[in-house]
Parts: sequence; structure tokens; C-alpha cells
Amino acid sequence: MTTPPEQTVADLGEHALIERIRARVPAAPSWVALGMGDDAAVIEPARNRAEVVTTDALVEGVHFDRAYVPPAAIGHKALAVNLSDLAAMGAEPRAALLSIVLPGAMSVADFDGMMGGWFALASRYEVALVGGNIARSPGPLVLDVTAIGSVKPRRALTRRGARPGDGIYVSGTVGAAAAGRFARRSGAGGADAREAGGEGLAACEARFLQPDPRVRLGLLLGRTAVASSCVDLSDGFADAVRQVAAGSQVGAEIDGDAVPIPDAARRWFEERERLDAFEAAVSGGEDYELLFTVPARRQRALTAVLRLAGGLACTRVGTVTADRTLVVVRRGARTPLAGGFAHFR
Amino acid sequence: MTTPPEQTVADLGEHALIERIRARVPAAPSWVALGMGDDAAVIEPARNRAEVVTTDALVEGVHFDRAYVPPAAIGHKALAVNLSDLAAMGAEPRAALLSIVLPGAMSVADFDGMMGGWFALASRYEVALVGGNIARSPGPLVLDVTAIGSVKPRRALTRRGARPGDGIYVSGTVGAAAAGRFARRSGAGGADAREAGGEGLAACEARFLQPDPRVRLGLLLGRTAVASSCVDLSDGFADAVRQVAAGSQVGAEIDGDAVPIPDAARRWFEERERLDAFEAAVSGGEDYELLFTVPARRQRALTAVLRLAGGLACTRVGTVTADRTLVVVRRGARTPLAGGFAHFR
Repeated sequence: MTTPPEQTVADLGEHALIERIRARVPAAPSWVALGMGDDAAVIEPARNRAEVVTTDALVEGVHFDRAYVPPAAIGHKALAVNLSDLAAMGAEPRAALLSIVLPGAMSVADFDGMMGGWFALASRYEVALVGGNIARSPGPLVLDVTAIGSVKPRRALTRRGARPGDGIYVSGTVGAAAAGRFARRSGAGGADAREAGGEGLAACEARFLQPDPRVRLGLLLGRTAVASSCVDLSDGFADAVRQVAAGSQVGAEIDGDAVPIPDAARRWFEERERLDAFEAAVSGGEDYELLFTVPARRQRALTAVLRLAGGLACTRVGTVTADRTLVVVRRGARTPLAGGFAHFR
Repeated sequence: MTTPPEQTVADLGEHALIERIRARVPAAPSWVALGMGDDAAVIEPARNRAEVVTTDALVEGVHFDRAYVPPAAIGHKALAVNLSDLAAMGAEPRAALLSIVLPGAMSVADFDGMMGGWFALASRYEVALVGGNIARSPGPLVLDVTAIGSVKPRRALTRRGARPGDGIYVSGTVGAAAAGRFARRSGAGGADAREAGGEGLAACEARFLQPDPRVRLGLLLGRTAVASSCVDLSDGFADAVRQVAAGSQVGAEIDGDAVPIPDAARRWFEERERLDAFEAAVSGGEDYELLFTVPARRQRALTAVLRLAGGLACTRVGTVTADRTLVVVRRGARTPLAGGFAHFR
């Protein structure tokens, strides 16, 4: 599959590109009755499971810029953001469909790199690529993905189950992806990043470029019924709190001092961007962590879940309230929760 | 839902647009455990059925031009092309996900018109909209759809089952959509079309703008096991023959004089475009008819199927051959089958 570096995807054409992808698709699991290559794929549903389906797109110039996001990260991320949605439902990923709207001038090497990022993540979570589409783009590169997972009936995690008194938890850290995006955009990536922000900033960049969806944590929270609600941090921490509150018709009191913002991200927001680090962190999207609520009687079970979740830190960041306002307490001061990442405007 | 005519989708923003769509979603069928509005949808698979999934995108400037394709046709077509893929598998449509990449300058009236076209077709085939996404586009409008259907295990129609001696059939007509596209592009739409090409050309335009996917025919061909293979005419008649031949490792002899090209399309190709009408018709994409093969012993059963298919004409256009070439016989002369609609180049 080596090609001259200057060869473009338009030189190859749709059929050759599809063949290039098919050549990399691993042997299909037994439940794929018919994979890529027909008008549609045929898959057998998982026994005694409901199906969980989601779609999300990455658009060049809106969600990423090829100047500072390498091809492998684009392919990785297109799948990761959808697996993150499945994780937030407590679902086990099974299959995905990938629709690519592709500028003809993209090099075949970049196309291969992009698909390499996809397949590396797909293989980690055993996600079968069962269908797709390639269309020419007269403008930006668009990767549109539908992911399909399975969940035990009535064990799906939703935004609706939070009750007053439940603890509010977040996995990993908050604001890392936003800081990583700023750093990549400013050109302080790679070796520079280590000088400017140390290893912590490199981790923020990795979280921005190749977020690891919290699949295992989501599965455990759903199967054990430890979480009463769950949502992912695609549009930021503040937006996630708002979604759970709206879905469950409750409010929240967030302990702002407990929100786990990485030191390197905090420094970048304050020193380089002259931003309030807390506001920047909770408003910045793309963390792809999970925000979930846990009833008091399930908090001991949570400890067991976290042991099984492979060392992923989860932090209690607040409490669900009956009063339907969203409040942050920082150094004793109560303020309304602001922020939220607007994809469209 | 009335808005000032000049209001744009960017004025409204992502959340308001999603609410606008949700307000139009009909009551969900009982198998939709959780519809739009969470990280993902939860659906119960149909009992004793395999699942059929497909994805296809419509890209502005590639598959349509807003100068001559009205908003309702765009919404209709985005769903229709996916239902056509399900029909070609013999599957019954159930659900769809719609991902829209949307230029901010699009008017809210056009957005509503587009969704009106979607919902009209979705209601005709009882397709539940269970998820979606809206992202901003810095360039073209893109509608990316995933459709989900169900089929009895081992009753899915594929491209693999054609055997030498099987008859080759096509539903409806061939070349209508291409002629309709030419006519719309030349500005001869609407009242002009009736003058230039009569009612026949208006029908070609309708086939181009609002193709009716052959859902019922596909279902009947699959359930009765009348067809040995099936494919839709998304990329044209010639390409469809090629797909079945390649998938089944057979050849085909096409009776060129039997291919049902509408008179109005033939006239438009010859008089306006100075094209060979047959070549133009079999190369033109977007007919969204079904091409299928029927073993000799099932041809009587086919007659019964066609009676049930609601008056949709199907025409025998050739025979599957063991010799793996693709031949057209026109007025006694044998030539190789050319053509095929290239989406990408």
C-alpha cells in the first residue's frame, strides 16, 4: 500500500479508496452476517440486549484544523467521540459505519494515516466497520460516524435518573482537551510543549488529539446500576451538568475547588490565554470524560467499580439538588454555573 | 414555527434547531425505548430478525445544487437514497439517524422545508428518527443518513446470488433521473418542462427530485425468495449490472432494446444534450430503481409478486451468463456494456 507521496485521493477514485479500506478491515465477528460491499450490512443483534445507536460528525474548520491535527488523530477522534456517546449510555460498542466527505486534493498518505487512526482505536474496542460511504467534498473534510452498541434492557444510563442528594462525579480531568487545543493551535506542540508546559501539557494535547473514550467505566456504571444518570463531556463540563439537570429536572451544587483541572491546563489558561482557569476548563469541550450521579446508598459499590475501571480516577465534584438552579461554590463564594461549548454559533 | 423570512439557522443555533426537529417527530413506536435527546438512542431489535444498516450522504455541489433542487427535495432524497439501499436488501425500514452539516447562512424557512421533505417520506414508510446531529459547515450543506431495517435471517437479498440463466429485471424506468437532472439544471423546470418535454419530462424531474424508494418491491422479492440477487440503481443501470456480476462472479447479456427508457428522457438526451440516449440512460445515476435476477423456476412466482407490488412495472432486460463479460445487444449488434456513475472523480 505504498504510494507516491504526492498522489491524491482524487487520483485513486472512490472504488480504489473503498478497496483500500476493505483491505484493512479485520476478519468480521460471527454476528456480522454480511459486512461491507453490498447495498447494506446485515448484523445479528446481541441476544437479550437492546441496541444503542448514535451519530456524530467531525467537520474540518469547525471541530479540527488539519494544520495542527494530524491525520491519525482525525480518524481516531471521529470514532472516539461516538464511542464516548455509547459509554455515556453504559453500552458495549459493537459496530460502526463511516461516511467520509473527502476533498480531492487530500494526499493518499494522509487518507491512509486517517484510516490508521480509526483502525487502531476500532481494534482496541473490537468495533467492526460494517459500512460506509465516500463522497467528494467541494469544501471541508467531514467524517460522519454512526456507532452501534448493545445494553441490557433497562440498564441503559440516561440523563433522566439523577435525584436530589446523589453525588456528582467526573472521570479523569476537566479542561485538558481545551488547553491541548489552545497549545496545538499556538504551535507549542511536540518538543516545545514540554518546555512550555512540561509533561502535563503533552498529556492535555494527547487528550485533545486522541481522547480515550471511557467505554469500560460506562459499561461498569451501567451493569452494576451504580450510576443514576450519566452523560459525556463532549460539550464541556458545564454543559454536561446542565444536560443532566434538565433531563432529570433537578439542580446541582458544584464544588468548584474539587473540579480536577490539570495544573498544566490551569497554567496555560491563566498565563497564555489570560483566562479564568475554572471558567475556561468547565466551558471547554471535547474532554470526552463521563459525568455521572451516584445515589448515597450506591457509593460503596462505586468504590468497587472504580477498582475494576483500571485505575481511572473519578472525583466527586458536587451534589444533586431539588432546587433547580446550577450553583458553583469556589472558595466559599456561590455563583451561577456558566459556560457550555456551542458547536453551532 | 413561523419565523421572519430572513432569519438564518445561525441566528437560531444548534439547540433551537434540534428542538425544532424534535417538535415534529411523531410519537415513537413502542420498540423505541429511548429516542432523540440523550447521548444515544435505545431501540429494541425486531424479534427473530437480523438488522440491516446502511449509510449514505448527500453533498451540496456534488449530489445536488440548491439553485435547482428545492429544500424539501433535499430532505426527501437524503432519506430516500438510504431507504433504497434497504429495499435492495429486501429489508423493512425501521429507524434512521440524520447528521446535518449546515451552512450558517441557510434560512430557517429552507431548513424547515428540508425537514418537511424528510418527515413526509419518513411518515410514508414509518421510519422513526431516533438520533442525529447538527454541526456548522464552513462550506457545503451535507446530509448524512444512517438507515436501519430488519430482515428475516437468510432472506436478505445480496449481490452474490445471481446464477447463469437467471433473468435480469429492472423496476420502473432507466435514465429518468439523469434526464430530470439535466432539465432542472438547464432551467427548464416547472411550467417550461411541460412545454419542452411534456408530462413525461415532469415525471423525470420528479424521479430526480423525489425518488420513491422501492421498499415494497424489495420486501416482496426478499420474503418470497423470488430474486436470487438485487441491487439498487443509485449509481446507474450499467453500474448495477456490474455490481451484481462482480458479486456473483457471473456475466450478463443485456437486451439494450428492452431497457425501459422514458420517451421524454430519450428525447432530452438526444435533442438537448446531443448524447446517445441509451448510453446516457444506463450511465446516469440516481434512478433508485431495483435491478434483480430471477431464476427460471421462480418466474411464475414473480408474476404474483408484481401484482402485489402495487402496479410498479418491472421489465426483463437480459440474462445472467456464465461467461464473465458484460454485453449489450442493440438492434442485433453486440457491444461491451459501458458507463457507470462515478461519485468521486
